[in-house]
Amino acid sequence: MPGETVWKRVVIVGVGLLGGSIGLALRQRRLAEQVIGVGRVGHAPRAAVECGAVDAALDRLEVAACEAELVICCAPVQQIPELVEACAAVMPPGGLITDVGSTKATLVEQIESGPAQSHFCGSHPMAGGTASGVQHARADLLVGKLVVVTPSVATPPGLVERTEQLWQALGARTCRLSPAEHDAAVACTSHLPHIVAAALAGATPLELLPLTASGWRDTTRVAGGNAHLWRQILEENRLPALRALENFAKVLNQWQSALERGDGHALEQLLDAGKAIRDSLGS
Amino acid sequence: MPGETVWKRVVIVGVGLLGGSIGLALRQRRLAEQVIGVGRVGHAPRAAVECGAVDAALDRLEVAACEAELVICCAPVQQIPELVEACAAVMPPGGLITDVGSTKATLVEQIESGPAQSHFCGSHPMAGGTASGVQHARADLLVGKLVVVTPSVATPPGLVERTEQLWQALGARTCRLSPAEHDAAVACTSHLPHIVAAALAGATPLELLPLTASGWRDTTRVAGGNAHLWRQILEENRLPALRALENFAKVLNQWQSALERGDGHALEQLLDAGKAIRDSLGS
Repeated sequence: MPGETVWKRVVIVGVGLLGGSIGLALRQRRLAEQVIGVGRVGHAPRAAVECGAVDAALDRLEVAACEAELVICCAPVQQIPELVEACAAVMPPGGLITDVGSTKATLVEQIESGPAQSHFCGSHPMAGGTASGVQHARADLLVGKLVVVTPSVATPPGLVERTEQLWQALGARTCRLSPAEHDAAVACTSHLPHIVAAALAGATPLELLPLTASGWRDTTRVAGGNAHLWRQILEENRLPALRALENFAKVLNQWQSALERGDGHALEQLLDAGKAIRDSLGS
Repeated sequence: MPGETVWKRVVIVGVGLLGGSIGLALRQRRLAEQVIGVGRVGHAPRAAVECGAVDAALDRLEVAACEAELVICCAPVQQIPELVEACAAVMPPGGLITDVGSTKATLVEQIESGPAQSHFCGSHPMAGGTASGVQHARADLLVGKLVVVTPSVATPPGLVERTEQLWQALGARTCRLSPAEHDAAVACTSHLPHIVAAALAGATPLELLPLTASGWRDTTRVAGGNAHLWRQILEENRLPALRALENFAKVLNQWQSALERGDGHALEQLLDAGKAIRDSLGS
């Protein structure tokens, strides 16, 4: 892309899989003069320097952010408002803060009730993986992926474009949704699958595990994710997740009823409906 | 394994992914003098010959089976009793018939009500894959996998051992379950995951598919399977599948209640319970 912005100092807060991959991509694509990593819990992320994900690591967010042009918060979602406020308090005028939090309405509401609003535009990259940690970071993690940018009515318009340009420069596609639209969508596409996978694993007697095959393994894979992080996500997005679960329970009732009646035709219709949607995505 | 049986003529009925992989393995391991493929619908499976999965293809089961020492039925589960009876009617004394059907109680009951019983011992290999068709067959598909052998009280004991030896010679492990025990187990470990995956895909609005990531993709993968075959499986295993679904719905109710109450502690317990079981399997 011609004429791409080169950011002066970029600070990545929380340099794990996603933060590390963003750092690697910024550096390899020469999109930043300097990329600084800050640890999530006040420790300088030295592993991120060793991996080449950042140029340098600092342990104090205020020190890192005071000359930053861009801060990307890759911390757990419930810590993001506080981190955004801390950055906004020391950043130069015009500095942009975005995040990668997987829920948005609560977070944006908290940030917009304070002075950080003039710096902040939310983001949610639809990218991740089974492995966590900066050692699994890849410069191409975001290439071809979708990043949802979630401005609210209060977000300064210039910030929205700059946020979109950031992700596009890293190889991602972007779309805009309001924080509430975003949360309802990811409740369906991400939080409900996690609940379903964890419930399915939890409903399986341990002694039957030797009788599982690839179907069980794939369907339950995400249940192996970090339970504490997922608690936070579900707490943040409680009502949209509940609506998605209620809707799923209705579909499951149709299955139960078809099995009770021994209605093979209804079962095949339900199977076809699921297959049609699954197949329309590709493998 | 020293002194492994070499079967004289083995007939594979239905040479798809599983039947083809069995044929490849029998031939590569030199466990059969001759492997004959019979098509599921009366057509000689020429593709199986081209793939090297069988030595020759025949279109008439009776012709293939009349000199067979071993027949392995890899057809859809509802066709198996009829195929087993047709084979048993022409096979030499002492001939063994087994199958790979994924439900067992109904099938065994049907077979045991007729004369084929003295030839038959059921099997269910816990192996498969996303791809179907003989072109995806692999000689090592069964290596290290579990095959459940499902004798009933009426199965002649010698047949059970010969069936186990067959699978072990192909590199699989074996265990024995009664047909009813088997069906209750796979309802939990295979049929319920399929229902859940298809229900999850079916509950996802098409317009949200661009917002799905690897979590949704993995959790719904099996929903892309053959709907007509799955209808048969669920019809055959209706009551065990219904019991498994009812049990799953109870676990899902706990999730719903925790979300309604906003009970983060309960959510984390549910997440932990699912993760513990998922993690005990490995990736």
